[in-house]
Amino acid sequence: MAFPERLLSQTTRTMGVSFIREMLKATKGVEGMISLAGGLPSPDSFPKAQLAGLFKEVIEVEGADVLQYGASEGDDILKRQILLHEGETAVDLDEVLITDGATNGIYFFSRAVIDPGDIVVCEAPSFNGSLVAIEACGAELAGAPMDEEGLIVERVRDVIRAKRAEGRTVKYIYIIPEFQNPSGRTMSLARRRDLIRTAREAEVLILEDQPYRDLRFYGERLPCLWDLARSEFGDNHTVTICKSFSKILGPGLRLGYAAGPAPLIAAMAKWAQKVIVSPEGVVQRAVARFLERGYMEPHIARITGIYRSKRDAIIVALKEMMPSGVRWTEPEGGLFIWVTCPKPIDTDALFSEAAKAGVAFIPGAKFYPPGMERRDEMRLNFSYASEADLREGVARLARLLERS
Amino acid sequence: MAFPERLLSQTTRTMGVSFIREMLKATKGVEGMISLAGGLPSPDSFPKAQLAGLFKEVIEVEGADVLQYGASEGDDILKRQILLHEGETAVDLDEVLITDGATNGIYFFSRAVIDPGDIVVCEAPSFNGSLVAIEACGAELAGAPMDEEGLIVERVRDVIRAKRAEGRTVKYIYIIPEFQNPSGRTMSLARRRDLIRTAREAEVLILEDQPYRDLRFYGERLPCLWDLARSEFGDNHTVTICKSFSKILGPGLRLGYAAGPAPLIAAMAKWAQKVIVSPEGVVQRAVARFLERGYMEPHIARITGIYRSKRDAIIVALKEMMPSGVRWTEPEGGLFIWVTCPKPIDTDALFSEAAKAGVAFIPGAKFYPPGMERRDEMRLNFSYASEADLREGVARLARLLERS
Repeated sequence: MAFPERLLSQTTRTMGVSFIREMLKATKGVEGMISLAGGLPSPDSFPKAQLAGLFKEVIEVEGADVLQYGASEGDDILKRQILLHEGETAVDLDEVLITDGATNGIYFFSRAVIDPGDIVVCEAPSFNGSLVAIEACGAELAGAPMDEEGLIVERVRDVIRAKRAEGRTVKYIYIIPEFQNPSGRTMSLARRRDLIRTAREAEVLILEDQPYRDLRFYGERLPCLWDLARSEFGDNHTVTICKSFSKILGPGLRLGYAAGPAPLIAAMAKWAQKVIVSPEGVVQRAVARFLERGYMEPHIARITGIYRSKRDAIIVALKEMMPSGVRWTEPEGGLFIWVTCPKPIDTDALFSEAAKAGVAFIPGAKFYPPGMERRDEMRLNFSYASEADLREGVARLARLLERS
Repeated sequence: MAFPERLLSQTTRTMGVSFIREMLKATKGVEGMISLAGGLPSPDSFPKAQLAGLFKEVIEVEGADVLQYGASEGDDILKRQILLHEGETAVDLDEVLITDGATNGIYFFSRAVIDPGDIVVCEAPSFNGSLVAIEACGAELAGAPMDEEGLIVERVRDVIRAKRAEGRTVKYIYIIPEFQNPSGRTMSLARRRDLIRTAREAEVLILEDQPYRDLRFYGERLPCLWDLARSEFGDNHTVTICKSFSKILGPGLRLGYAAGPAPLIAAMAKWAQKVIVSPEGVVQRAVARFLERGYMEPHIARITGIYRSKRDAIIVALKEMMPSGVRWTEPEGGLFIWVTCPKPIDTDALFSEAAKAGVAFIPGAKFYPPGMERRDEMRLNFSYASEADLREGVARLARLLERS
């Protein structure tokens, strides 16, 4: 007898999957395929020797502690090292939750605040992997458009007003202000202040997703919204930030953290207790020791060097090879470039053609909340492929776009 | 301004916490306290030297793979080693999901099948940590009583009938058949068969939680329900099993797995993708290599030796010291003994007194689904304290019970 589909819950039957992870499966391991699709860090960026030594040492020396049950809130030793590293020593430990990566923090945040049917305002486009996690908690997404300066805050106010006029509850604004996924754009300082002001006036929360913040190649580091709200507005309840070690040390470690108001962090920990019991102990302590020994700064300097060079290589290739009418962002950091094609091109259709031609990307439509899809855009990743492959991948795409 | 409580979701505001974890916090680190409260493995049981070597080696040799993004379903190399180790080579990889411990599997299973208001039938008493995770997914618990042979299946049928008469949907039966938490009881083979028959006739699922299965000190190993359903009933969709490496290698590793019907495992993986993205990569591969090198069998032989000796020590102490009228289970494995006091004693009230006297346990009422609480029972853990402390802890409890 086959498993009866009716036994699955309504949410499970109807919820989306991460298209990106599905597409990655489809293009992985294909002979000669150059993938500009995923958001995979370069394996050259992993600090293997340091991590190998620390994992061994932590199990040998602190094994009785790190192999035992730990706190759902995460390891205090790691929390302290993170706050020291970030220069946030005024933050209390109960304002921090260690998570299994940033997505895990976004999920717990959403569980903590979302009642079914609540509205979450997001950038359009935004990261599909986060959007499906937010929707799985029963939220409905409402997108607000971006321009080169990032999310257009005036349009956020319009969305909140419109949804409230429909009698809906707007719970929070989800935003990736730095080197945004997928667009590569960075939100300007003026817009950051305006967004905090808007959220405070509307009494909605902000969930700030910052997985790429440390990967800045050019330009000046801007204060994150979490910091701005605390320092300029004296507000420590509006913004919660999620960060991740995935793009810095390796996504296989599944390690990140959330920082926000203590009562909300406590509510997220109540969910963590039920969903994962606690984060993994060995990984937490090994990363704590990595920070403590001062390995992080030189490591970040080394990997931003790798990524800056890759970013420059793909920009040069795009400039040299792309047919006229094609435009792209020039990000100051992160992993992604956002390409806009002349209107008649449908990047959903182009995807299969490109796969045949040996190059993969993610069609832009995958990054929009339902109903707002645009089909003339695509996301290119430059962190994983070699510089030679980045160049060849762009050449293959350029030939296809010329023919289209 | 304080964080506004109204911004938390309805479920978050009303859901329970794991009393056990809260109680552990309250009694942890108190000078002279002997804790028989938690379910902590003995630190002596952790194979530190082997794990330290394997973690280092896996990062050095396979770092580019294990530090990278992995499959939400878990590492195929680990899945294959688990199936080999369990002698389950007829099982397909897509019938297995690697999880962040057994609780994580129970959560994903519940998310995959529970619609708000669905009924889950559980043993009364059962493990509080699982029950709150199941309730957090919107299920309502309905307990069925146990006797020395485990869950009374006739009473399960009564519960299903009664709930259906009320128009409710019964989704699954949650059961810990081996060395049950908290009772230490093991379900008889006849009851196992009867439960599978009952579930099949009623068209409900069974979630079999087996975290202690490998810790058997006495008696003969019984087939698990998952195996029985497949081998004797030719049924590979009714039972899903959750197992864990927490009690074998260390709970800090947060590693377990679920095995069940492929469509349900796929649905659980859809949740994993959104909640944790994937299990931790280094831990998965290190444990795969641990199994591959044949470290597991001698390791289990060593730790069951440790725990058998502790179990015998606490049973001897109970026999010598407990006042007449007090009864307890004599488990063939696992971590727990269930003590039933003469009726006038309220173990909830006894808890604070005992804490003052320097001994901690978990009051029995904490393990019952709402409305079924009994106050004359307590759970004693024998895996964590030294044999001398087990004896002294029982002596302190016995003195209190004599005075009561």
